Amino acid sequence: MNRRDKIPVAVLGATGAVGQRFVQLLADHPWFEIAALAASERSAGQRYGDACQWVIPGDPPAEVADTVVAPLNADLPARIVFSAVPSKVAREVEPRFAEAGYLVCSNASPFRSVRDVPLLIPEINADHVAIIETQRRERGWSGLIVTSPNCTITGVAVALKPLDERFGVRKVFMSSMQAVSGAGYPGVASLDIMDNIIPYIAGEEEKFQQELAKLLGHVDHGQLVPADLVLSAHANRVPVLEGHTVAVSAGFEIKPTPDEARDLLESYQPPEVCRRLPSAPDRLIYVRSEPDRPQPRRDRDAAGGMAVSVGRIRTCPILDLRLVTVTHNTLRGAASGAILNAEYLTAQGYAVE
Amino acid sequence: MNRRDKIPVAVLGATGAVGQRFVQLLADHPWFEIAALAASERSAGQRYGDACQWVIPGDPPAEVADTVVAPLNADLPARIVFSAVPSKVAREVEPRFAEAGYLVCSNASPFRSVRDVPLLIPEINADHVAIIETQRRERGWSGLIVTSPNCTITGVAVALKPLDERFGVRKVFMSSMQAVSGAGYPGVASLDIMDNIIPYIAGEEEKFQQELAKLLGHVDHGQLVPADLVLSAHANRVPVLEGHTVAVSAGFEIKPTPDEARDLLESYQPPEVCRRLPSAPDRLIYVRSEPDRPQPRRDRDAAGGMAVSVGRIRTCPILDLRLVTVTHNTLRGAASGAILNAEYLTAQGYAVE
Amino acid sequence: MNRRDKIPVAVLGATGAVGQRFVQLLADHPWFEIAALAASERSAGQRYGDACQWVIPGDPPAEVADTVVAPLNADLPARIVFSAVPSKVAREVEPRFAEAGYLVCSNASPFRSVRDVPLLIPEINADHVAIIETQRRERGWSGLIVTSPNCTITGVAVALKPLDERFGVRKVFMSSMQAVSGAGYPGVASLDIMDNIIPYIAGEEEKFQQELAKLLGHVDHGQLVPADLVLSAHANRVPVLEGHTVAVSAGFEIKPTPDEARDLLESYQPPEVCRRLPSAPDRLIYVRSEPDRPQPRRDRDAAGGMAVSVGRIRTCPILDLRLVTVTHNTLRGAASGAILNAEYLTAQGYAVE
Amino acid sequence: MNRRDKIPVAVLGATGAVGQRFVQLLADHPWFEIAALAASERSAGQRYGDACQWVIPGDPPAEVADTVVAPLNADLPARIVFSAVPSKVAREVEPRFAEAGYLVCSNASPFRSVRDVPLLIPEINADHVAIIETQRRERGWSGLIVTSPNCTITGVAVALKPLDERFGVRKVFMSSMQAVSGAGYPGVASLDIMDNIIPYIAGEEEKFQQELAKLLGHVDHGQLVPADLVLSAHANRVPVLEGHTVAVSAGFEIKPTPDEARDLLESYQPPEVCRRLPSAPDRLIYVRSEPDRPQPRRDRDAAGGMAVSVGRIRTCPILDLRLVTVTHNTLRGAASGAILNAEYLTAQGYAVE
Repeated sequence: MNRRDKIPVAVLGATGAVGQRFVQLLADHPWFEIAALAASERSAGQRYGDACQWVIPGDPPAEVADTVVAPLNADLPARIVFSAVPSKVAREVEPRFAEAGYLVCSNASPFRSVRDVPLLIPEINADHVAIIETQRRERGWSGLIVTSPNCTITGVAVALKPLDERFGVRKVFMSSMQAVSGAGYPGVASLDIMDNIIPYIAGEEEKFQQELAKLLGHVDHGQLVPADLVLSAHANRVPVLEGHTVAVSAGFEIKPTPDEARDLLESYQPPEVCRRLPSAPDRLIYVRSEPDRPQPRRDRDAAGGMAVSVGRIRTCPILDLRLVTVTHNTLRGAASGAILNAEYLTAQGYAVE
Repeated sequence: MNRRDKIPVAVLGATGAVGQRFVQLLADHPWFEIAALAASERSAGQRYGDACQWVIPGDPPAEVADTVVAPLNADLPARIVFSAVPSKVAREVEPRFAEAGYLVCSNASPFRSVRDVPLLIPEINADHVAIIETQRRERGWSGLIVTSPNCTITGVAVALKPLDERFGVRKVFMSSMQAVSGAGYPGVASLDIMDNIIPYIAGEEEKFQQELAKLLGHVDHGQLVPADLVLSAHANRVPVLEGHTVAVSAGFEIKPTPDEARDLLESYQPPEVCRRLPSAPDRLIYVRSEPDRPQPRRDRDAAGGMAVSVGRIRTCPILDLRLVTVTHNTLRGAASGAILNAEYLTAQGYAVE
Repeated sequence: MNRRDKIPVAVLGATGAVGQRFVQLLADHPWFEIAALAASERSAGQRYGDACQWVIPGDPPAEVADTVVAPLNADLPARIVFSAVPSKVAREVEPRFAEAGYLVCSNASPFRSVRDVPLLIPEINADHVAIIETQRRERGWSGLIVTSPNCTITGVAVALKPLDERFGVRKVFMSSMQAVSGAGYPGVASLDIMDNIIPYIAGEEEKFQQELAKLLGHVDHGQLVPADLVLSAHANRVPVLEGHTVAVSAGFEIKPTPDEARDLLESYQPPEVCRRLPSAPDRLIYVRSEPDRPQPRRDRDAAGGMAVSVGRIRTCPILDLRLVTVTHNTLRGAASGAILNAEYLTAQGYAVE
Repeated sequence: MNRRDKIPVAVLGATGAVGQRFVQLLADHPWFEIAALAASERSAGQRYGDACQWVIPGDPPAEVADTVVAPLNADLPARIVFSAVPSKVAREVEPRFAEAGYLVCSNASPFRSVRDVPLLIPEINADHVAIIETQRRERGWSGLIVTSPNCTITGVAVALKPLDERFGVRKVFMSSMQAVSGAGYPGVASLDIMDNIIPYIAGEEEKFQQELAKLLGHVDHGQLVPADLVLSAHANRVPVLEGHTVAVSAGFEIKPTPDEARDLLESYQPPEVCRRLPSAPDRLIYVRSEPDRPQPRRDRDAAGGMAVSVGRIRTCPILDLRLVTVTHNTLRGAASGAILNAEYLTAQGYAVE
């Protein structure tokens, strides 16, 4: 694609930790080109290189360092906007952009649970974009909002999807061990987490049930019908920089053997269209056979941080199966996931005005 | 108690990480006095100060630095022996000491699962010492073996005991986050655990089911009858130095409310005799009411590392209750626990020859 | 001392991280009794237990949890005030208390460098209190201000004092590895320091030169004359919770051998009066002979966190000696150090009105 | 280059931590092709995938997993051998390969200090290969040995080289903060380094003086003449996974200003031939202007781990300049550095038989 043919995109909340990931990933994107970086009033008007304390490894891409940060107004010279603003801001700002005709690919939480907004992981529920039609019709939007799920539930949903299709997931017990980067920057104080575990993350456990049911749900007459499942979660913060690990026990309508589960996970194929998207991993699910994998530091970067690693697949004395997932929370679980959503929308023709 | 009236004790495996804890704790003990430090042939014959690379904070007690390390023969000038030797050695050595008349208070695993050997936490199952009579009669031992449970299941058992008495524990889900000190020294390589989680600890998950059932069991006609419960475990190693954290979901015969559970835990009283033992905590169970506690670094030292901290008591969508426990794994879960066992045996008259 | 005879004290900035240490240490103090806890307007008027997010291990002392936090006005029912307020606040508030007659024992930095304010470590420069007379006379204060030095330079000053007395320190090269607790709470973000080093601490390197010269200076005609020395520092933040480690090379007027230095450090005796203070360590300097000590986690708690550990004493190819110091930065280097100063002033009669 | 034209190479000590890095880096190398993986008897004869516990992120390259590990005999089907064996083994094995005609590019220490063996960082002392002629003639070798320097001194040498050329380095103070990966696997126990600093690394400080003098030396009549400088070092191990940080103070024959130093570092150009080698970084030295950089986690991967990051360039009150360097210790400081040496030798025609 020529530079002139690239689709202009903007990042809302470009100076935060997730916003920086967006900028880093979009700097070299084959389909998209950064046309604007927007942030709150505190940063608007400054050079991006000055407004932003770069917290991820390396440096801000040279080509955006001099970009002047725009305010969060729906008049950016872009077709797609990636939203990495805080929840409170997202609730107010994202609908304004959708109304004004932008495709909003959001990493924020407010619209994840909203009935007519897709919670999208294209490789497992691409068909959910069908509800966009309802969203636009009922709200009178020329644009749209699509959201990426919570960074922790993402890996669980991907790992359970192939099993759900065949065996029907009914009960999920999960204990997460979440990296500090999931809390943004400055986020977790070192005095709180070094040599320590915090067995609590505000609001997190409640989201898991709702989002997993939505992710594994189906569309009926333009409406999303959540899956019928019960989830019990323990959310924990651990001294790991990147990569959320989740210990999962799952119960199914039909009990699978560990071997059946492993085979399904290894052979899972996302829809063909998804596999050809620029940010799609070579394989969605990496099944580990070593007894002590997956591990966040050693597996978070699988397929450039876009694969979900699954291992320790074994029976569960209470439900049916136990397994462990590792997912890169700021790539698959945040910025890259939202970019993949935008790529999917583009491939489906939504970006053409 | 006069020094001359103190009971002479020995530590087997005195140079290892748990052995060092024994030495540190016994150096000042009101009832016991270190009469011998024993270890494998590699160390025997050396000064303790030279044989032992001290890995816990501070220094070896001055009074034992010059003690010559004895071999692991059952001819030590002691009445009680604390065993911190590796499993393979324990299997062979501990029965020799029991046969020779010593009270063996073991922190090793081989005899934990043996039918006629008490797995003892005096505050919750002091009555299990009744099976010692069977042990001695059937084996013809003049001494005895009593074991301390696995450092991770200890906290879970303590937290569930008051609930089990009233509501009957039937199902237990647990996901542990275990400190590196649980693996001894040198144990876990820094390259394996820094910025990482290892979602596997060899042999650990199997032990939990067996030990919890035994700890919550009862004695019938001199035989131990394990509790009838099912346990599903995920064992994880985390970058924490001391303090095992466990996320627990439990199902009961009668469903308790979180408030009932909290009240029972807060008001739990161990048998009077236990509360007067020198190593007994002021309170066995610390119930935390903050949303984000207990935490290993902030709660492991409660009551000198002898209390179990329990928090986040709430309902479970799948079973009945969710809660979190934190236990100091090398104190309550290892050395101090075994010393408390010896104190209990002493209080019950077993140390009198 | 009877409770009624104890000296009433107040803590300014009681809700912060260092303030909490003061509260914890004073709760059981044999000479002092907490009569007031003061903090900024944000906290004043609340219960201490509510106003304060307790960040150090354990819980706030039960007896102060219900104390209502007072504002920072110089009308507290106390004789001594311990100041743990931020620099900006200290600059304004501390003189008001000194003017109003309080003995201000400050852990804040603004007055450390002021000519007529002692920078006190009683064991090494108790004679510096002589300049208080000048302070009071010139400023017309009925109270006084005494400061504790920067937490990093404290250990260096203690280690160099015995050597300076005999050999005359002239040049000091130091590279610090400072714990995150030195930055207060929330302080250093985990995303900034996990698996990382920050080779910079704002303003820190400049303070070292000034404070070391003052600490090793002498009093002449009621004026403090700083020592004549040059210092070159590299200040680094490291992923350690507590305990500042400093690699030091020092040059002297007369070159000592490592053995001479070791002997002097081992035999150093603070003035007799200091040794009898309640917070004084049994030994001020712990000389370590192992090749790999002192280490912050293993040595920071020496003598309850009040000793300075020194090791690796060896020649320096450029200056004369190389050595390493470890000091507990929030005990000796902050709260306990300031309490020791108050004890010294009390022993010298300053607390009698 | 066609696959058939690639130069066959072997890795000695292929199963260790540095060996794994060699394998990972060579799997895709444009000039070299792995023809053999050799290791000690313990591993020889096994599949590489089985013999090797992969400790670096990701997985072993698929194409070598089935390679049978060869013993350390000088009959491997290769032209160049990369040596990552332990010192004791290197001392014996490397000369055998050199004698048998192999180009030995060693990461081991025994021959670093040997008079007629180049200690090579091509970008700063490419001319040192001239002593190979002496080496071959005097020893009668048809092959040769070239060594890579200690991973810590590498960054210091690179940072000082441009300054030395113009101002003449005479005195160097350095305090290192070295990552745990520098100690290999399993290396440093987590119980030794979490929440801790070890202010000692056996043998390390002595090497620094010797290696820096050799690296900055010159060749005269086929003999290497070390630079005339004095170095004083403090070596510290810190809880960082990868990336050695060094605080440096340096004194020169002619005193540079910080600005002059910065300009020289920023404009430094290695010899043209070096810049075209496949593993050469785009820029050798990254000068950081932020006050708090370089940092190991944020800068170790600069230029794929091959650049040296230098920052905090400022005056030194004792010597002339202070600065901080960060270098990736297992890439530039180990495997990649040795591969670069092999590329340089190849470019100079040494690999042609």
